[in-house]
Amino acid sequence: MATTRKPVPTAPERPQPDATRRSQRSRRAIYDAALALVGEVGYPKTTVEGIAARAGVGKQTIYRWWSSKAEVLLEAFLDLGEQAARAQGQGASYAIPDTGDIAADLKTVLRATVDELYDPKFEAPSRALAAEGLVDEQLGREFVAKLLEPSLQLYVDRLRAAQAAGQVRAEIDPRIALELFVSPLAQRWLQHTGPVSHAYTDTLVDYALHGLAPR
Amino acid sequence: MATTRKPVPTAPERPQPDATRRSQRSRRAIYDAALALVGEVGYPKTTVEGIAARAGVGKQTIYRWWSSKAEVLLEAFLDLGEQAARAQGQGASYAIPDTGDIAADLKTVLRATVDELYDPKFEAPSRALAAEGLVDEQLGREFVAKLLEPSLQLYVDRLRAAQAAGQVRAEIDPRIALELFVSPLAQRWLQHTGPVSHAYTDTLVDYALHGLAPR
Repeated sequence: MATTRKPVPTAPERPQPDATRRSQRSRRAIYDAALALVGEVGYPKTTVEGIAARAGVGKQTIYRWWSSKAEVLLEAFLDLGEQAARAQGQGASYAIPDTGDIAADLKTVLRATVDELYDPKFEAPSRALAAEGLVDEQLGREFVAKLLEPSLQLYVDRLRAAQAAGQVRAEIDPRIALELFVSPLAQRWLQHTGPVSHAYTDTLVDYALHGLAPR
Repeated sequence: MATTRKPVPTAPERPQPDATRRSQRSRRAIYDAALALVGEVGYPKTTVEGIAARAGVGKQTIYRWWSSKAEVLLEAFLDLGEQAARAQGQGASYAIPDTGDIAADLKTVLRATVDELYDPKFEAPSRALAAEGLVDEQLGREFVAKLLEPSLQLYVDRLRAAQAAGQVRAEIDPRIALELFVSPLAQRWLQHTGPVSHAYTDTLVDYALHGLAPR
């Protein structure tokens, strides 16, 4: 879930020499080109040469900073998450709020995730990468380890806080528990198995917290 | 989930004329060839010609029965589900048992699903098709509509019976409820986001039925 992605470290906000500004402009152009290409032609046909050409930089500029197209894309996605977080006024990183109400907080973050999943800037490259991750197991595992799992750990942290507050049972494994609401959303989005809305993710949170059986 | 796949109609068990037996042998060879090819070279590179060559039949034999490779694969998967059901002594179709204990019945069917998902005969073609379904939205929707959704409806039926028996709250939407245990398994299997075991699916059922919050 992109809305909870951990940020890559960013430079502090201060005046920077021209060379650094130029570097940052190049990085931004490379990220944009990589995301656009993978969304348009898919991961297998995206190349470092193609990214460089579209970004208007030399191939050697890309290889100075990254070792492979997979590395470029990984950072481009991390950067996309940062941008989205900034747009929502959360600074450079998403966080799961802790208002003391676990149901309300999970609903908030899942609603934001829905909005991002269906953002055109995000959707095409994400699908292309997810598809490739299914057939290229090594790529899939790298993206899960570096991108998905760190974001899921934010849910683990929030559920642990809810356990400490007595809102989630102490014997629950938070890493499994989060899947009761995250995985249904992921499957509907990935496989088009059903409509997605804020009402839907709200329902998932209610069912997961209170259970299907009568109380 | 393949273990709950609905069967395609099959001929009754009775002596058959030679022509029919030959047709059935050809169908079996075509199914096997289609599944093997899509697992080995992926969906885009699987062709009707390739399936015919591998099955040892003429292309026209395939086009007599099916209009496209997607149709061949759809039936091949349905047939695979039937075979797996027969191997488990369930006749030609899987069913979700109704022993009167919803927790036990869901655990039984999910354990069988885990076994099938990691069956080598099933895993490679399923992954190849799932990956293609992510990028080819029309194919993805067709497979969801004809293969996945009918199997999910068996969970809907079982959850409705549980509602009638007072084991699931009446106000629950069964189509959403089933995702609390089906989607986590699907995501771990598809995206390698975590280990899968019978203990894991048992835990999903317990969390979904009883909820994360204290009772």
